[in-house]
Amino acid sequence: MVPHLITALTGPINELEQRVLESMPAIERWFRLEWMEHTPPFYTSVDLRNAGFKLAPVDTDLVPVGFNHLTPQMLPLAVQAAMAAIEKICPEAKNLLLVPEDHCRSPFYLMHLQRLVQIFTQAGLNVRLGSLDPALKEPLRIQLPDGSELPLEPLVRKRTRLGLKNFDPCTILLNNQLTEGVPKLLQNLHEQYLLPPLHAGWAARRKSKHFASYEEVAKKFAKLLGMDPWLINPMVARCGEVDFTSASGLECVQVQSEALLAKVRRKYKEYGIGERPFVVVKADAGSVGAGIATLRDAKEFDPDRLQQTLARTSDDRAVTEVIIQEGVPTYERINEAVAEPVVCMIDRYVIGGYYRVHAERGSDENLNAPGSSFVPLAFAESPQLPHRGVKPGASPPNRFYMYGVIARLAMLAAAYELEATDPEAEHYD
Amino acid sequence: MVPHLITALTGPINELEQRVLESMPAIERWFRLEWMEHTPPFYTSVDLRNAGFKLAPVDTDLVPVGFNHLTPQMLPLAVQAAMAAIEKICPEAKNLLLVPEDHCRSPFYLMHLQRLVQIFTQAGLNVRLGSLDPALKEPLRIQLPDGSELPLEPLVRKRTRLGLKNFDPCTILLNNQLTEGVPKLLQNLHEQYLLPPLHAGWAARRKSKHFASYEEVAKKFAKLLGMDPWLINPMVARCGEVDFTSASGLECVQVQSEALLAKVRRKYKEYGIGERPFVVVKADAGSVGAGIATLRDAKEFDPDRLQQTLARTSDDRAVTEVIIQEGVPTYERINEAVAEPVVCMIDRYVIGGYYRVHAERGSDENLNAPGSSFVPLAFAESPQLPHRGVKPGASPPNRFYMYGVIARLAMLAAAYELEATDPEAEHYD
Repeated sequence: MVPHLITALTGPINELEQRVLESMPAIERWFRLEWMEHTPPFYTSVDLRNAGFKLAPVDTDLVPVGFNHLTPQMLPLAVQAAMAAIEKICPEAKNLLLVPEDHCRSPFYLMHLQRLVQIFTQAGLNVRLGSLDPALKEPLRIQLPDGSELPLEPLVRKRTRLGLKNFDPCTILLNNQLTEGVPKLLQNLHEQYLLPPLHAGWAARRKSKHFASYEEVAKKFAKLLGMDPWLINPMVARCGEVDFTSASGLECVQVQSEALLAKVRRKYKEYGIGERPFVVVKADAGSVGAGIATLRDAKEFDPDRLQQTLARTSDDRAVTEVIIQEGVPTYERINEAVAEPVVCMIDRYVIGGYYRVHAERGSDENLNAPGSSFVPLAFAESPQLPHRGVKPGASPPNRFYMYGVIARLAMLAAAYELEATDPEAEHYD
Repeated sequence: MVPHLITALTGPINELEQRVLESMPAIERWFRLEWMEHTPPFYTSVDLRNAGFKLAPVDTDLVPVGFNHLTPQMLPLAVQAAMAAIEKICPEAKNLLLVPEDHCRSPFYLMHLQRLVQIFTQAGLNVRLGSLDPALKEPLRIQLPDGSELPLEPLVRKRTRLGLKNFDPCTILLNNQLTEGVPKLLQNLHEQYLLPPLHAGWAARRKSKHFASYEEVAKKFAKLLGMDPWLINPMVARCGEVDFTSASGLECVQVQSEALLAKVRRKYKEYGIGERPFVVVKADAGSVGAGIATLRDAKEFDPDRLQQTLARTSDDRAVTEVIIQEGVPTYERINEAVAEPVVCMIDRYVIGGYYRVHAERGSDENLNAPGSSFVPLAFAESPQLPHRGVKPGASPPNRFYMYGVIARLAMLAAAYELEATDPEAEHYD
């Protein structure tokens, strides 16, 4: 089953789809040249939103989850991409150490870990899981919903190397957001490959930096295709020092929200979009589960509500840096349920995707909010096999190919971002 | 549907399957290290034969056909592998020129060409077909069985570059065996990538050289797994100057055949194989369609029959160089029909495979002989997804994974072979 777009088949995104398909060789060549200059993240997932008049990434995850939602048919692609990734980083690798989230025991997450183990085992590595949880002293066998077991072992640090008992890995793969900072165990590892690097964790990462890089990428890509970058780029503003304890501490958020709403309104007018614009306010750092406030009008601005929503971050820290982002409604529906596409990638390759389908939420709400239970639905067709010559908007593989292109733009932006924020890089600006 | 092996489930190949699965990380690492030293051919297909007691490649094609037999599910893997291949060779490539066989109008072959166009288009290249046929003066639209058309254009040579009218490619992909020698149009192209290189065509290639390289690879691999290389290596002898006009001119073939039969008999005795050994005599150069003579006993040696069979090569030239190869019976069956697996690869990646199924031929006959009509049957499951812990011989994905490993050994041997036979290489032996 493929979600239908409730917007008309004549919107700008259908024109975009057509242009993307026509320009496929130029686009793929452009990516090839970009990847010569920039190293793709090891693995990535990108949440997209398709409003019919606009298609944009809203979240780029460098510590992805949800690989369990991919179909078995997508698995060989993941294995092949993992082989290519490992070959570049550490061709002599025998062992891969996977470091998962500390306390997450959600069945979905465990199945995701199992899928990662499967992919990298089949790419030819001995994969074992090491936990950052200091309370874990002995190996633990976690039961999975399908009846299988996932062995979790205590990490063992020996001088500059990290491993497990009798297990010395060449590469350490983090599947841990590091929201609470970088544990000592992971610091100063110079002989092993730590992927993604520590500054890709939310202790260091900032959404504003990512979307600044994305804007740069979107502009380059839009120039290549001769189109308005706004069609794929969500506008962003930032407030660096927000004080939630006083109304004046929130002034920046109010001013920036009003300014951004005005900009979005002008764009809607330019394109004749009869919708009511909105912006979302969210923590600049922080991952899945952080609170997001939606704002449609400056008059709606309510410091108390904002404080309440944003303080509800996953780790309950006070939020001091926020971004204000142009809201992109999602107009894909399965029956009546809102559907948001997620594209999964390993190295530079799109390996598959799925939809978060949520019956109880609106098109302008965050579908990945705390407590949100979504139904995953794998893409019904391959994003690798567009059919040229099909009417725009009518072909699921063509839509998925376009999603793969936009998701790769976000991945490329993450590559730019990680270069710009690398604490060990020498900058010659 | 998956062919069943008529041999018992206790043969050495089941042990091999088990060892291959257990050693998967070591095997994949070994391949990674080999590919650091040796460049894989651009694309390859390998014919295998599984006798239950022995599994070996019998033909390694560097100008593969039959990609049309792959399932649509295998296509994304092919596209991803093609992206990786192009990226290494010519990342700035916009255009790919495909040069097919001159006069082949078989519907199977045309569908294969269409599949190649599809794969490389979806990898992001403008693909056009240029014909070596000097009789073609104007573009021609060839009708395909599915109703579509394949445009074929005359090649245009301008000094050191080859292209079409208004089409200057970075890479030229040969799908032409060059059995009749290297046409002038293809000679001295120094600015463009010609793939595979000219010495991969049958004007220069020799099966004896390939199997000498394969023996080297098989020995290395067998050492890694701690097994007898004979289990995966067909023994080969060669006669360089065979004169078919006199009985004495065939003496070398007779002597070598007898010697090889004796060696095979000893191996059968060692493994307690109750079969009657055989050898096959075939042209050292020459591709699909060349005659092959089967010999079970020195007493059967019949110069007239041999001459008759071997002279029936695809281009009717007299055969002067022949190889004598240990025959490997194929013991896979679908219902009563003999089935021979073919593994398809792009760059270093297995992209899929299919069976040649032939009801009218015996297990010791060539299934790719002139006039042989076979039914293609795509592998029912992915060769990328072995299931560890399943009883050997009982799991199709495990069998296909093993086939992918042996096919990659043959591909690696082709890489060795092309290095050793490269006329432009500097050798420091």
